[in-house]
Amino acid sequence: MSVTFPGGFRASGVSAGIKESNKADMALVVSEDCRPYVSAGTFTTNLSAAAPVKLSKANLALSKGEMVGVLLTSGNANAATGKRGDEAAKRSLERLGELLGVDPTSLMVASTGLIGIQMPVEKLIGGLEGAVDSLGATLQDGTLAAEAMMTTDTFAKTSTYEINGVKFGGIAKGAAMIAPNMATMLAMVTTDAQVNRDDLAEGLFRAVDATFNRITIDGCTSTNDSVFVMASGKSGRSLSAGELYQGLYSICYDLARQIVFDAEGATKLIEVAVTKAASVDDALAVARKIAESSLVKCSFFGEDPYWGRIISEVGTAGVDLDIDRVTIRYGGIMLYSDGEEILVDPSTTAAVMALREIHLEVDLSCGIESASIITADLSPAYIAENMRTS
Amino acid sequence: MSVTFPGGFRASGVSAGIKESNKADMALVVSEDCRPYVSAGTFTTNLSAAAPVKLSKANLALSKGEMVGVLLTSGNANAATGKRGDEAAKRSLERLGELLGVDPTSLMVASTGLIGIQMPVEKLIGGLEGAVDSLGATLQDGTLAAEAMMTTDTFAKTSTYEINGVKFGGIAKGAAMIAPNMATMLAMVTTDAQVNRDDLAEGLFRAVDATFNRITIDGCTSTNDSVFVMASGKSGRSLSAGELYQGLYSICYDLARQIVFDAEGATKLIEVAVTKAASVDDALAVARKIAESSLVKCSFFGEDPYWGRIISEVGTAGVDLDIDRVTIRYGGIMLYSDGEEILVDPSTTAAVMALREIHLEVDLSCGIESASIITADLSPAYIAENMRTS
Repeated sequence: MSVTFPGGFRASGVSAGIKESNKADMALVVSEDCRPYVSAGTFTTNLSAAAPVKLSKANLALSKGEMVGVLLTSGNANAATGKRGDEAAKRSLERLGELLGVDPTSLMVASTGLIGIQMPVEKLIGGLEGAVDSLGATLQDGTLAAEAMMTTDTFAKTSTYEINGVKFGGIAKGAAMIAPNMATMLAMVTTDAQVNRDDLAEGLFRAVDATFNRITIDGCTSTNDSVFVMASGKSGRSLSAGELYQGLYSICYDLARQIVFDAEGATKLIEVAVTKAASVDDALAVARKIAESSLVKCSFFGEDPYWGRIISEVGTAGVDLDIDRVTIRYGGIMLYSDGEEILVDPSTTAAVMALREIHLEVDLSCGIESASIITADLSPAYIAENMRTS
Repeated sequence: MSVTFPGGFRASGVSAGIKESNKADMALVVSEDCRPYVSAGTFTTNLSAAAPVKLSKANLALSKGEMVGVLLTSGNANAATGKRGDEAAKRSLERLGELLGVDPTSLMVASTGLIGIQMPVEKLIGGLEGAVDSLGATLQDGTLAAEAMMTTDTFAKTSTYEINGVKFGGIAKGAAMIAPNMATMLAMVTTDAQVNRDDLAEGLFRAVDATFNRITIDGCTSTNDSVFVMASGKSGRSLSAGELYQGLYSICYDLARQIVFDAEGATKLIEVAVTKAASVDDALAVARKIAESSLVKCSFFGEDPYWGRIISEVGTAGVDLDIDRVTIRYGGIMLYSDGEEILVDPSTTAAVMALREIHLEVDLSCGIESASIITADLSPAYIAENMRTS
């Protein structure tokens, strides 16, 4: 149940041999009839943006958001690969355009995997015919596409949503190099809403900002982050701006949480909610400082409600506040208030800390705004995963 | 060889029982004759500054930099301990003033250890008499003071330096919650130079900025960081501003490197040198982004020269640069240039990556400025150390 849930989309996931394991590594999501759909995309802010990111951005601009499909590959990021990398991405879309009978500038591409290694371009291009031949509109085809995007992910990430007769679907990958703005994550969202380009782009931008940009695993912003949306119009219905946002937000939020849940080595998902801040920016700054702290993350792995590390991070977030008015709650249990520890029966906090998902609230008592960042704990398995090129 | 190396200082290190292990946890460094010396201090920028930080700052201002001594304790940070914490710090200096026969506002205090737990005030005060009785001017007394500051440190950090007949000495502690501006680190520097207050304060500020503020272990800025300096004048000599800076810099640099060398769980010390930047601020921003990256640190632990993660961090440092002109060298070996990988015999890079200290150079080709941040790798032992309150 994912990108083929809304009407008007075909998808596939195959092995092109980019991964040495011969696991699936190439996904396609294209319009039913190879006609262009209203589309939008958001991309990494990393100056070392990968070749596919640069090409997709250019094509989206050239084609004024009227796109036929997206090629998503895993196993090689095609990042920091110079002119040969640009050429590999370009040639793959030229070949895909040939196979689909469309202009290559109506296509987008995203890649994820190792940085700095040249893309095996013959395998990339050689795999496209099989991927096109495998295109199908069943729900299973969408799942195969999600599986073909996986790198260190332990499960395929998919989501669906329906509102007012309009369907939304999405697939994503990501398990590390995940930080606000954005993550080593690729996501493809589909809908059968009738929508104009500006509303779709605006809705995607806002939804990504409130979801994918509010998760962090290790504070590292990748070279390849891309989120695409295509709208087929096949439902024959248009949505209000609020409904459109709700659909996009729901898919993106669901996929973002799945990414943190599947974070490399993670044993816990932690929602860091900063409340009563003077502004949303302040709330986000404090939440990010806490969520990116190695010491805080180690404490969560150890199931230790060491609020002292939280209050220390609050003090270095660059936000003007009165530290003695801050309140800290783990799973609703107040542990710090009025500048001092609140003594609580350790069995109560132990029960909260043993949960798979933990809610941490930091109340700043400064205003009325709030915001959350979702993160994971830091475990030895994260190091084991990342101590070698992976 | 440390704080008692320059003339005019006495030191001691004893167990006051603040640590349950009964290891040494209380150090004193005081003037020979209990007369005030020209002194200066720099402190954490954390808004959650601990009680001793607030009190030392206040006393330094009240006494116009004329201080008799410093009390340094380990095992409890006396941070986030509210009014009771403030009271404990104040009472300890009152008692110390009584024992030394000096005004308590001529004394400073620094503490390190667990955050958020009330200081065992009776032990703190009860230990002072023994600490005063143990004061001595031998080199061994300075070493005992360094040992009494240790928390998770595996060795005592001491340093000495001599220039133009003037001696400098220093002791420090720190192994985690270490980040630029500054670290969970305490340091006490002594000199027998004749110097006025403004020159001493300016020299210390500059030296700390170029040393302790350029190391990072986990990007966490602590609640308790304090660096003190006292100048006895006993050498009868004054130094030029350049010589004074050289002495202070040498001690602070040596101690800062020792802190990173002893970083919790670390197997490597990495100097991240960013060269040919448009400004020192740019160089520092890029160096910090690399030095604080969990992914980069995991690669060093795995002895994997994964330069792709370096170029990715360069792209997200918020610095305007042309990524295709960046050059990356591990131990002098060029691995990335002109936007692409440079293929090198793996045995050559393996030899560099196996070193205990590794020099990483990132040449931005943007200008003429450079700066370094010194960091450590990230290993499972760091997590083991920090998964429980420690």
